[in-house]
Amino acid sequence: MATVPLSLRDCEHLDTQDPLQHLRSAFQLPQGVIYLDGNSLGALPRNTAQVVADAVRTEWGEGLIRSWNDAGWIDLPQRIGDKIASLIGAAPGTVVATDSTSINLYKVLSAAIGMAGQDAPQRKRVVSERSNFPTDLYIAQSVCRQHGCELQLVDASELDAALTDEVAVLMLTHVNYRTGAMFDMQAVTRRAHAAGALVVWDLAHSAGAVPVALQDAQADYAVGCGYKYLNGGPGAPAFVWVHPRHTDRFWQPLSGWFGHAAPFAFTPGYEPAQGIQRYLCGTQPILSLRALECGVDSVLAAGTGGDAMRALRRKSLALTDLFITLVEQRCASHDLKLVTPREHARRGSQVSLARQDGAYPIMQALIARGVIGDFRAGDPQATLGHVDQMDILRFGFTPLYNSFADVWHAVEHLQAVLSSSEWTQARFNSKQAVT
Amino acid sequence: MATVPLSLRDCEHLDTQDPLQHLRSAFQLPQGVIYLDGNSLGALPRNTAQVVADAVRTEWGEGLIRSWNDAGWIDLPQRIGDKIASLIGAAPGTVVATDSTSINLYKVLSAAIGMAGQDAPQRKRVVSERSNFPTDLYIAQSVCRQHGCELQLVDASELDAALTDEVAVLMLTHVNYRTGAMFDMQAVTRRAHAAGALVVWDLAHSAGAVPVALQDAQADYAVGCGYKYLNGGPGAPAFVWVHPRHTDRFWQPLSGWFGHAAPFAFTPGYEPAQGIQRYLCGTQPILSLRALECGVDSVLAAGTGGDAMRALRRKSLALTDLFITLVEQRCASHDLKLVTPREHARRGSQVSLARQDGAYPIMQALIARGVIGDFRAGDPQATLGHVDQMDILRFGFTPLYNSFADVWHAVEHLQAVLSSSEWTQARFNSKQAVT
Repeated sequence: MATVPLSLRDCEHLDTQDPLQHLRSAFQLPQGVIYLDGNSLGALPRNTAQVVADAVRTEWGEGLIRSWNDAGWIDLPQRIGDKIASLIGAAPGTVVATDSTSINLYKVLSAAIGMAGQDAPQRKRVVSERSNFPTDLYIAQSVCRQHGCELQLVDASELDAALTDEVAVLMLTHVNYRTGAMFDMQAVTRRAHAAGALVVWDLAHSAGAVPVALQDAQADYAVGCGYKYLNGGPGAPAFVWVHPRHTDRFWQPLSGWFGHAAPFAFTPGYEPAQGIQRYLCGTQPILSLRALECGVDSVLAAGTGGDAMRALRRKSLALTDLFITLVEQRCASHDLKLVTPREHARRGSQVSLARQDGAYPIMQALIARGVIGDFRAGDPQATLGHVDQMDILRFGFTPLYNSFADVWHAVEHLQAVLSSSEWTQARFNSKQAVT
Repeated sequence: MATVPLSLRDCEHLDTQDPLQHLRSAFQLPQGVIYLDGNSLGALPRNTAQVVADAVRTEWGEGLIRSWNDAGWIDLPQRIGDKIASLIGAAPGTVVATDSTSINLYKVLSAAIGMAGQDAPQRKRVVSERSNFPTDLYIAQSVCRQHGCELQLVDASELDAALTDEVAVLMLTHVNYRTGAMFDMQAVTRRAHAAGALVVWDLAHSAGAVPVALQDAQADYAVGCGYKYLNGGPGAPAFVWVHPRHTDRFWQPLSGWFGHAAPFAFTPGYEPAQGIQRYLCGTQPILSLRALECGVDSVLAAGTGGDAMRALRRKSLALTDLFITLVEQRCASHDLKLVTPREHARRGSQVSLARQDGAYPIMQALIARGVIGDFRAGDPQATLGHVDQMDILRFGFTPLYNSFADVWHAVEHLQAVLSSSEWTQARFNSKQAVT
């Protein structure tokens, strides 16, 4: 924590030194908005509108059915998958962009449990983190029910103890959506393998946000999201990776025609394609895939594959460090609890502040001022005072388009809201979208 | 069959009498193309480009995360689902637009088998048509494997005999993708129910093409496609319908957060929403959903719900009747076998012509002339001379934008190709898209 309070001028100076500063102009950002919610929906790359317009008017309108071949629609899941692979430490030909994260998780979790059931039928347990993103837990509940397995939810601190010889699969989200805490993928994977379990990683808050090395970590399966740090647009298709040692071993259950060895032979019997293609199922939403490719390209503008991620990571840590410092300097008296780890190696690209009450109306007041972060409700069934139980103000930092001055202004607004009566107890509606 | 050959002038006269003729101008159709492949990818409605552009620049670019509520993204699956419901004889609130047809089929087939397993555990068989669209069979194979069931494939003529007391589910595509033959949904459903089986209908070639009355037929489950006659764009999201008597009875296995009773409460335990919402899974591709809504609206431009479908049906039958008549008048010597039923009650909105050889290069030559139909390979394992074994030239007719003059010109080109040496034995590549 800096002892001399930082000024706006200090932050503006950091921007002048930022080697990625030129990338901000590649995004369309609304006037008067400081956008700190790229971990929920990434901002719009400027060239997406033209690419999507061409896909509508030229590829679809003029090319019609011919564009499946002539415009390369048929290869988009693999082509975009290869670009994403370069950002997550995976080999070309091992990732496809397709379906939603939930559906891809169903595929890999089914495959992992099915494979474990062949190799070690006595292992009937899936372990995950209690505060994992809920849809991951919902999907795991379903897959466990289908396979007669038990889903065990633990705190991150209890993971090692949970890795017994009854565990078939460890399923984790690499960066926690609430706290921004990041697992050491390599170490956790090694420990899980030593205990005889397979590991499924959800990279929803990692892809495009932090360096990931799936192949080096010898991970087994991974899924991730296209609409957060990959800037692929609302509900953009997700992605799925399977380690090549597993790909051809198991028939994932969503066995649609795009995963068939010869999809257009129209034979009645399913014969899975070799490699990651068998993780495709039905026809993909091409307009949304076109937008996703622009988003992935917007990340690759920072460099090639791993280089891009290292450059982005340096700035991401500088942004989140600055935010933490400024909040502690200027909002110290407002009962905010930093729940994101200070340790760089354990931090994703967001900062979460817990508060026992008022988090929802405080965020609403911030949004009214043009500072867009988001709110995550605590789990009322968690232990009182535990971080799982507390409501959270969540601020995501995207080094591609967030500046150091953005950070300064955001904290200025946060301090002003906390010191004022702008926020009152608005009622949180859990059926309304707060993605 | 008309005895006096029809002329182009006769067809142009039919166009002047066509009450739907004005709808053609609502589509962007390429110059010099006669598009008879709307049963594979519907043409582009003129207003789609602007709606998608607004979704990109304004809703996403300016609204960012706020558009989940402010632009109504969160309700799109239900809102579009209600519009589709009006076209397929379903009640409001019983359809959602989401995911792909294959994935939706997995959901409903799993639910149907699961429910049958509770009510009649001795029933362990799923019956379908051997020439059903392959992805349906691939999905059925997977679901059967998971539930310890057997998949029995029969010819349409053998269906009644196959409906024994061992059958849990009858899964059929209402209009066959190869032949254009249509089942009598009400009669088949009644016979299946009398035999104690549930019925799953795939409406891929029905929705927007022929009148469908799911509720009147007392069908159990249905899925369908957004990118064919609904003009939703390449890979548009599909839809799923479940009869209200079943919806709340079973937990479909793709239990993602959008199917949760309170998706944004972020509670760790899955609690399915009431009604059709539980058939949602993950976040949907919004840009593609926006395009799908324009496509559904392009069909509803013909009238309201059932009225639209009756008007479209009248013209569809007139178009396919004309095509059959002209082909028989002008191409009689060219070994084409009409495989689409002549009987109106058994015909969808396409005409399929089988040929023992040459179908692929003949279609390529037609496409080179700007007449776009498509080709479907026969199943080499089917009996020689059986329609399943023969290659097929497929012509889809979309009354919204196809004219009677289109039909005349298409047959003119077909006759010219067949009489010439334009087609030679080009090799068919079963890995290349011929969707």
